[in-house]
Amino acid sequence: MNLTGQNILGYETSRQGINTFQAHNPNNGTALPENFHEATAEEINTACEKAEMAFEIYRKLTAAERALFLETIAEEIMSLGDDLLERCHLESGLLVKRFQGERGRTVNQLRLFAELLKEGSWVDAKIDNKNADIRQMQVPLGPVGVFGASNFPLAFSVAGGDTASALAAGCSVVVKGHPAHPGVSEMIGKAIQKAAQKTRMPDGVFSMVQGKSIEVGQAIVKHPYIKAIGFTGSYKGGKAIFDEANRRPEPIPVYAEMGSTNPVFILPNIIKEKGEEIATNLRKSVTMGVGQFCTNPGLTILPNVEERTLFINAAKEAFDISYSATMLTEGIKKNYNAELEKLQNQTGVEVLSTGDEREEGEQGIPHLLQTDVAHFLKNEVMENEVFGPSTLLINASSKAEILQFARQLHGHLTATVHGTKEDLKEYEDLIEVLHRKVGRLLINGFPTGVEVCHAMVHGGPFPATTDSRMTSVGTGAITRFTRPLCFQNFPDFLLPKELKDKNTLEIWRLVNGEWKK
Amino acid sequence: MNLTGQNILGYETSRQGINTFQAHNPNNGTALPENFHEATAEEINTACEKAEMAFEIYRKLTAAERALFLETIAEEIMSLGDDLLERCHLESGLLVKRFQGERGRTVNQLRLFAELLKEGSWVDAKIDNKNADIRQMQVPLGPVGVFGASNFPLAFSVAGGDTASALAAGCSVVVKGHPAHPGVSEMIGKAIQKAAQKTRMPDGVFSMVQGKSIEVGQAIVKHPYIKAIGFTGSYKGGKAIFDEANRRPEPIPVYAEMGSTNPVFILPNIIKEKGEEIATNLRKSVTMGVGQFCTNPGLTILPNVEERTLFINAAKEAFDISYSATMLTEGIKKNYNAELEKLQNQTGVEVLSTGDEREEGEQGIPHLLQTDVAHFLKNEVMENEVFGPSTLLINASSKAEILQFARQLHGHLTATVHGTKEDLKEYEDLIEVLHRKVGRLLINGFPTGVEVCHAMVHGGPFPATTDSRMTSVGTGAITRFTRPLCFQNFPDFLLPKELKDKNTLEIWRLVNGEWKK
Repeated sequence: MNLTGQNILGYETSRQGINTFQAHNPNNGTALPENFHEATAEEINTACEKAEMAFEIYRKLTAAERALFLETIAEEIMSLGDDLLERCHLESGLLVKRFQGERGRTVNQLRLFAELLKEGSWVDAKIDNKNADIRQMQVPLGPVGVFGASNFPLAFSVAGGDTASALAAGCSVVVKGHPAHPGVSEMIGKAIQKAAQKTRMPDGVFSMVQGKSIEVGQAIVKHPYIKAIGFTGSYKGGKAIFDEANRRPEPIPVYAEMGSTNPVFILPNIIKEKGEEIATNLRKSVTMGVGQFCTNPGLTILPNVEERTLFINAAKEAFDISYSATMLTEGIKKNYNAELEKLQNQTGVEVLSTGDEREEGEQGIPHLLQTDVAHFLKNEVMENEVFGPSTLLINASSKAEILQFARQLHGHLTATVHGTKEDLKEYEDLIEVLHRKVGRLLINGFPTGVEVCHAMVHGGPFPATTDSRMTSVGTGAITRFTRPLCFQNFPDFLLPKELKDKNTLEIWRLVNGEWKK
Repeated sequence: MNLTGQNILGYETSRQGINTFQAHNPNNGTALPENFHEATAEEINTACEKAEMAFEIYRKLTAAERALFLETIAEEIMSLGDDLLERCHLESGLLVKRFQGERGRTVNQLRLFAELLKEGSWVDAKIDNKNADIRQMQVPLGPVGVFGASNFPLAFSVAGGDTASALAAGCSVVVKGHPAHPGVSEMIGKAIQKAAQKTRMPDGVFSMVQGKSIEVGQAIVKHPYIKAIGFTGSYKGGKAIFDEANRRPEPIPVYAEMGSTNPVFILPNIIKEKGEEIATNLRKSVTMGVGQFCTNPGLTILPNVEERTLFINAAKEAFDISYSATMLTEGIKKNYNAELEKLQNQTGVEVLSTGDEREEGEQGIPHLLQTDVAHFLKNEVMENEVFGPSTLLINASSKAEILQFARQLHGHLTATVHGTKEDLKEYEDLIEVLHRKVGRLLINGFPTGVEVCHAMVHGGPFPATTDSRMTSVGTGAITRFTRPLCFQNFPDFLLPKELKDKNTLEIWRLVNGEWKK
C-alpha cells in the first residue's frame, strides 16, 4: 500500500498543511521516508462538520446496518494482510508476531460489537405503562473525538476500542492518529473509509487527522460538534484534555485512561509454597511488550516471612537473565529512563537487578527495584507510573502495614493478590480495601492481558482514569457514548423499534419492572 | 417538634457556629423565630469524616439491610405527621395540600428504591467464564454530597431523590439543607437520623448541615472524602459546583440539574381542532406551583395558521383570569421579576396578558408574552429560563422556521409536541431533531409532573444538566453513584453474593452473553 501522508476527511483525502512529520523506526532510530501532513485547522473543522452531518443520518440507521459496517471494517483490516503487520513493526519496534495477536484482538472487538448490536438488548429499553406511558432507551451522544494510543497501534488506536464502541453506539468519529505510527493510522483509516463506502455509510461517519503538535488534538476537543472524547495515554495528556473539555462553553465527557501502577500483593503462605514460580512469572508480566502496558505490575508488595529472600533472589535471577528490547519511541524510552532515575534516587530505594542491553536503538532495560512500606508511605513519588519494564518490590513488616499501604493507594486500573486459600481468608480485609482502589481485582494471576468480553472493566478511580463509572474495554464501553432518552405518551408509529408495543427485535426490555423478551 | 437549629452529624447534633439565620414566611415576609446555626468548617469536616467511616461499613451491608433503612426513613417521615406539612407550608408559601402530594412522592420514592434493592438485579451482574473467569457488578462510589433544592422541600431535598438513590447505591450522604426551608430540613434530617439508629446503620451514614453562605457548600464539594455531588437548582449554582469539583486534585462527578425552558410545539391541525383547550391547559401547567418547576413550559411555539389567533386569545383569557401566588423566597420572586423585565425589553417581545395580584407577600404574577421565531433566533436571551409562572408564545411563519428553531435549541429537560396523527406524521422530522435536544419527549401532554418510575428520565443535554448520561428521577438515578468493579479468577468464597456461582439472590445476570436468572 502506498502511503500518501494524507488526512482522511470522510470520503475525501486531504493534505493542505505545510507542516509535515515522519515516523521513526525505533529499532535503528532512522526516519521512515514518508511525509505525513499535519491537519490544518480548516481540515479539522471539515472533519468535525462532516461528522455532525453524518451523525444526523448514522444515528437513525438500524442496528443491523451499523453491525455490517463494523464487520466490514474488520474484513478490510484483515485484507491489508502482512503489509499492515510489517508497518506496525516498523513504526513501533515490536515484533510482527505481537501484531498478529493485536490484529486478531482488534477485529474480534469490532465483531463483538457487531454481535452486540444484532442482539440489541444493550439499549436498555424500559417501558412503564401502568400509569402514564413512559419509555426509555439509550441513544448516541453525537460525534466523538478519539485519540490513538502509542502502545497499541491497532487495538487502542484508529480502529481500536474507542472507535469501535463509538461507532457501535451510533456516533460518528473523528480520530487523531498517534504521531508515532502515522503509516499504520493511514492504512487503518483508509480501511475504515473503504468499509464506509462499501456499506453506504454517510460521508463523514469516520475521519482521521494526523498531527504531532498539541493544537490538532485541542482543536478536536474544543470543536462544538464534538460531544465526547476517548483517550488512552499519559496522565499529563489525559488530564490536559479533561481540563480543556470542562472549560468548553458546553463541557463534554472525557474518557481518559491514564497512568496506573497496578499493585501486586504476595501473601505469606503462597510465597512459601511457590514464591519462586511467582517471581519468574512476575518478571514475564513486567517485561512483556517491553513493559508498555497500562496494566503493567509496577508495585509488588512482599510479606514479612523468611521465604521472602528466596522470592527476591528468584526475581533477581529472572531479571538478571532478561534482555533489553526496543521501546515504542525515543520519547518513551527517555521518559522511562528519567522515571527510573527519579525512583532510584528516592531515599530507601535500591536497584536489585537489571537486564542486559542487547542491541542498539531505543532499548528499555528491565529493572527490579526494592524499597519498604515505611519509605513508600512517606513518599508519593513511588506510586508514580514508570512506563516500561520495571517493578518495585516493597517489603512489608506486618499485615497491618500491608493494610495501611493498601488504604493509602490512589486509584489504579488493577490490583492483584497472590494467596493460598488460607492466605485469602486471612487477608479478606485487604481485598475489601482494594475494592475501592481499582476497576479490576485479580487473584493468582497477572494484570497484563485484558480480555475483551462483557464482564471486563478496564478503568478505575482517578488518577487511573477521569471517569471510574465506565470501562474502555469490553461491551460495556459502548455506554460511554450514549445517554437515556425518554418518550412519554408516544403513539406507537413514532416510537423507535426498540420501544414499540410489539417487540419485533426480540430484545430484553424492563416492562413495568419485569425483564421480558 | 421543637426545632433546635442544630446540624446533624451522624448520630450527634451540633451547633458550634456563631452565624445563624432564620427562615422566612414568604406569605407575609416575616422571619420565623428559630435560629439555625450555620455549620462551621469543623462541623462539615466531621460530617465528611463520619461519612467516610460509615461508608466502610455501609457499603458491605446486604441489600435487605439497606432496603430496611430506606423503608424506615419513609415511616419516620410519615410519623412526623401534620407538623411537617405545616412547616413546609410556613417556609415555602405553598399550600399544605401540595405537600400531602409531595410527601407521598418522597416516601414512595424511598420505598421504590427499597424494592429495587430487594429485587437486586440493578447491580448489572455479568459473568464470563468460557476463557478466564471474569465477573462484574456495580459498587458504590463513596460518600456523596447532596444539595437540597428550594422548590421541592421534600422530594428534591434532604430525603429527596438524590439522597434516596445514593443511600440505595450503598453510599453515605452529607446533605447541605437549602436555607429557604431549614426547619423542614431539620425535621427530615432527624427522621433519617432516627431511622439510621433504629436499623443500626453506622454512625455517619447520613449527616445534614445547615448554611446560607456559599462556603458551606464549597467545603462539601472540596472535601477529599466526598466522591460525587447531587444538585438541583440554578444554572449559576450548578455550574459553579461543577467547576469547583473539576478543579479538585481528584475531580468528582457532579449531577447538577439546572435550568430548562421546556419548549412546547403546537402543530397546525391540532391547533384547529382543539387550540383553545390546549391554551387553557397550557396556562394551568405554566402556573402550577407558581411556575416553580424545572419542567415548567417556558416556550410555546405556534404554527402559521389562521386559528393561531383563537389559541392566543384563549391563552390571553386564561392568563387574564389567573391570580398571583406566593413564591418560595424573596430572592426567587425578585429574580422572576428581573428576568421577566429583561425578556419584555428584548426587541420583538410583547406582554399579552398578566394575572391579577391577589395578596401581599412575595407574589409571582402569571405572564403571557409573545414574540416570533425570527426575533428568537437572533437573540439567545429569549431561551433563558424565567423561573416562575410565565411562558413566551413564539409565532412561526413556516414549518421550515419551526425546524430551524428546534435545531438551534440548546439542551433542555423536556420538549413537548401537540399534534393530531396527521400532524405528527407531517412533523416526524421535528421530533427527530428534538431527540438530540432533551432527556424527555412528550406527545400531547405537559412536561410538569415527573413520574417516579423505571423509564423516567429527568435530565438532558447541557445546560439543562451537567451530565446528560444520567437521570435524577426514577430508579435509573441509582447508577449516578456507582461504578463497575471486575473480579478476575476469584474463588467463590471471596465473591460478593451477586456474583457467586450459585445465584442465591435470584437476580438477572448476563452469563457468557445470555441473561439468566
